Formats: sequence, structure tokens, C-alpha cells
Amino acid sequence: MGKMEYIDDIVKWEQEFHFFYPVTVRFSETDLFGHLNNTVPFVYFEQARVEFLKSKGLMQKWLQPESKTIPVAADLQCDFVKQIYFDEEIKIYVKANSVGTSSADIHYMGKKTDGTICLTGRGTIVQIAKQTGRGFLGVGKRRLYY
Amino acid sequence: MGKMEYIDDIVKWEQEFHFFYPVTVRFSETDLFGHLNNTVPFVYFEQARVEFLKSKGLMQKWLQPESKTIPVAADLQCDFVKQIYFDEEIKIYVKANSVGTSSADIHYMGKKTDGTICLTGRGTIVQIAKQTGRGFLGVGKRRLYY
Amino acid sequence: MGKMEYIDDIVKWEQEFHFFYPVTVRFSETDLFGHLNNTVPFVYFEQARVEFLKSKGLMQKWLQPESKTIPVAADLQCDFVKQIYFDEEIKIYVKANSVGTSSADIHYMGKKTDGTICLTGRGTIVQIAKQTGRGFLGVGKRRLYY
Amino acid sequence: MGKMEYIDDIVKWEQEFHFFYPVTVRFSETDLFGHLNNTVPFVYFEQARVEFLKSKGLMQKWLQPESKTIPVAADLQCDFVKQIYFDEEIKIYVKANSVGTSSADIHYMGKKTDGTICLTGRGTIVQIAKQTGRGFLGVGKRRLYY
Repeated sequence: MGKMEYIDDIVKWEQEFHFFYPVTVRFSETDLFGHLNNTVPFVYFEQARVEFLKSKGLMQKWLQPESKTIPVAADLQCDFVKQIYFDEEIKIYVKANSVGTSSADIHYMGKKTDGTICLTGRGTIVQIAKQTGRGFLGVGKRRLYY
Repeated sequence: MGKMEYIDDIVKWEQEFHFFYPVTVRFSETDLFGHLNNTVPFVYFEQARVEFLKSKGLMQKWLQPESKTIPVAADLQCDFVKQIYFDEEIKIYVKANSVGTSSADIHYMGKKTDGTICLTGRGTIVQIAKQTGRGFLGVGKRRLYY
Repeated sequence: MGKMEYIDDIVKWEQEFHFFYPVTVRFSETDLFGHLNNTVPFVYFEQARVEFLKSKGLMQKWLQPESKTIPVAADLQCDFVKQIYFDEEIKIYVKANSVGTSSADIHYMGKKTDGTICLTGRGTIVQIAKQTGRGFLGVGKRRLYY
Repeated sequence: MGKMEYIDDIVKWEQEFHFFYPVTVRFSETDLFGHLNNTVPFVYFEQARVEFLKSKGLMQKWLQPESKTIPVAADLQCDFVKQIYFDEEIKIYVKANSVGTSSADIHYMGKKTDGTICLTGRGTIVQIAKQTGRGFLGVGKRRLYY
């Protein structure tokens, strides 16, 4: 732990998380190596991010058919710190690490029931115009922080 | 084979398939029992159905944003005749078994490279109004048959 | 409702369900038609089935590496009674409709928060020998019923 | 382009790719925003990586039940350069950017049919002992390069 470039101080980084979304590893999410397939944490990250945005009152407007903007993932990364197995309960923590006028840097941390970190990650979301695909100002900066 | 209620004569049933879509089993589609997870053949069926509808010129209009109707699955079933493993190449055959004014009964057959049947299935697709969700006449009856 | 061949009396059929597993529709489980993709209820069915088997004390032994048998889906079907949308909470009910010496007929019912049925389904699970793939007697008949 | 820290010189980086695996975007891989869901490129990356490893003769031994080691993803990241839509054909290029004694840094590039880059990414794979989960020397260093 600590080698991830997006984590300066692991203790401080961990403490800044408050919101989490719990998931239980589904049978269909395992692979023939007997553990959680490496593509699935990104599904967990997305669902936790959506719940985080909902808790900030941001997701609702993007889901309305008349919304002119949608949030998209610009980049996404995950460090698989520990192997995860079928039926494990994982808490996926989410926080806004930094928020700009048109994008936000969202961080993720997965914890096993014993409190050990099994996943860390981050990714940029950008608000774009639905029709043109262009970046759009104002991602709801204040709401993402508090 | 033969116990499936939707197959009267397995020889005739098999011979009526012409269109197929090839898939290769992905690593992420296996599960911890070491074989293809049972939820994945429905993904294959959908993709093969979409390609079948495209080959009939039907999918294109449903994909246009201004289309007032969309096709939805009303029911779907699969018989897992043989276990399927990572990296196997499976041909997913599709045919329109019967076509009504507002729905079609689509049949599926999966074959391994040695020609043995590993999957059989069927399902009804219905054309509905995008806004109201109601059934809509005219699924392109003639085009599905020839 | 009622056209499904595996349901004789919908009122009685519905009343016989007791066990359920709750799911919330994930963003990644929707498709470009704006609703739950038709392949996903089978993922819900599997997860609910696994939880049902766990509640009966059956899943645990099958997951042990030294287990000589595994349960596999022999067939599976779903009726999509109502369209389901992002973020909906669905209760997936599971019951053993009938249990033989080597297989069990498992039934499924999905209910929206307003109590309406949105999914019905069924499928056979068979206990097979892990090495040979052959059917194996004794699926835990009594435990599945009560 | 160019802001990704794992790409020094985009022209040189692009030219070093030779192996690719073609995928076609499945209907079930889209989401309600009408484009490829952001979790799916990691599925493409895995499948392309597996095919790359197969082409180097490395995957086969890891898949044998008696293999004492398996390759796992230690980290993974993706930059979503362009939105991707249903039915698009994407070539997923793979190369070994660097290979150590127990791990390899694998890079990915997705190209649309018009040759534009729509995805870039990278990730470390590590060979670990199947039983203990510990890192294991010798990932087949020479084979990954040529």
C-alpha cells in the first residue's frame, strides 16, 4: 500500500471517506480462477458513485430525459490490493477528491468485513452535453464536497 | 434432447436454422465452478438475435432515436444441454419459429465446434410503443421469415 | 398473467413464496432502450437461488474445493411481466416447486416495491459430479422444502 | 491525448502495438445513456490480454488444473478517449510495455474502424501462487516481448 500515485498519505486518505455502498460478491461475478473477476470492481465503483451522486442530489437531474447534460467517466483506475471471493461483503467507499468547474476526481476504497482495504481506485467524471458530447461547465461543485 | 416442449422434431428443428452468430467464451464469462456461467447464454442469445434482426433490416429503425417503437423480450428460456468452457467457440443459431402481427417466437441453438448442440432456447419478442409500453402491431412479419 | 405453463393458479403460486433476496437495479444493468436489459434477471435469479440454497445449508458444501459435486442449471426461463428501470428495488422470491432425487425445480418471482409482479420464472438445478459431469443422486430433498 | 502518464510519446506508443483482438459492442453492453457502459472496456481489455497471452503460449499452462500459479491483475486503468456506441467494431491492441521477473506492465489501445483511438489503458499482471496468493517469479519474460 502507498505505491498508488493518487494516494499521498494513506492514513489521511482513508479517513476522508464517509459515504459507502455495500455490495455482496455475486456468484456470476467470480471467474474460473475462483475469485472475483477483475472487471467487476469497476461495476461496484460505478454503482457506488451513482449512489454517492444521488446522496448529493446530483444524479436525479441527469436521469431526466430532458436533461441536456450527462456525466461520463473520463478515466478510471483500480488497484486490486487483496483477492476477493464469492459471497464476501465489501463496503465501497466514495469521496470527491477534487472538484473543478467541469469535472470531478472521484476516489474509491473497498473494505472487507474485517476492515482491511481490498480495493483502491479513482477516476474523473466529466459533465458533457448529451447532443454534442462536449464538456460542460458546472458539475455541482459545492454539493460534491459537503 | 427432445424433452424441450418447444421442439417437436429435433432433426427438423435443427435443419431449419440457417443464420448463426459466432461467439468465443470470454474469461470473465466463466464462474468459480470452472465453466460458462449460466446467465451468459442469454447474452449470447440477445446478441445473436440482434444480428439476426439486423440481417433482416429490422434492427436499424428501432435504434433510431425517433423510432416510436422498440422490441422487447416478453419471455426467454434456455436449456443448458452441455457444459461450456472458457475459450470455446460457439455458433449461436437463430430462426423465427413463428411470427404474429405484434410478436415473434425466436428460437436459438448453440453448437460447439464438433457440431454437438450445447444450448437450445426460445423467446418471444414484442414490439411496443416506446412512450406507453403498449404492444404495437406489425413486427415486420414477412421479413423475419425470408 | 396466468399464461405461463409453469403456473397453475397464480394466487396459490404467489402465496407459496416466503424467501426473497432484494436487489437494486444497477446503472450498468440498463441498456440503450432505457430499461433493465433482459439478460440481467437471470443474474438476479442466480444470486437469489444461491442465497436460498445457503439458507437451506446446501450451498456451503458445494463451494468447498473438495466437494465432488456441484449444482448446475439444467434449464432456466423468465417471463418479463413488466419493464424494470434503473434504481428500482426488486424483491426476488425463490421457492422449490418440486424436488426429485437428483434435481429440483426452482421457481422465481420478482416484485416491485408497490407489490406488483414484474418477473416470473423457473429452472431446474441438477447436482452433477464435478469430474465427470454426470448426474448425482440426492440434492438435499428435504432441506429444500422446509 | 498525451495527458496519460503512462504514455510518453503517443506516436511511438501507438506504433509499438502489433497484436489486436477485435470486438463488436453488444447490445447488453450499452447503458441508458445510449453508449457503451464504462465498465465494459475492462472486459475487452481482459479478453484481449488473454488472447495476447495465448499467442505467446503463456495462457495455456495457467489454465491447467494442476498449475501452481495463476496470473492476476494487480492494477488496471483506462482512459475513455471517445464515446463508443452499440454495434461499433473496436480493435483492442495489446502490448507488453515492460516485463519484470514476477510481473508485466501490459498496455492497451482501442481503435474505431476509422483508425481513431477511443480507449487507452494499462495494467500490471502478476503471477501468484494459487494456494498462498504470494507473488511468484518468472512470468515468461522473454516470451511476452517477441
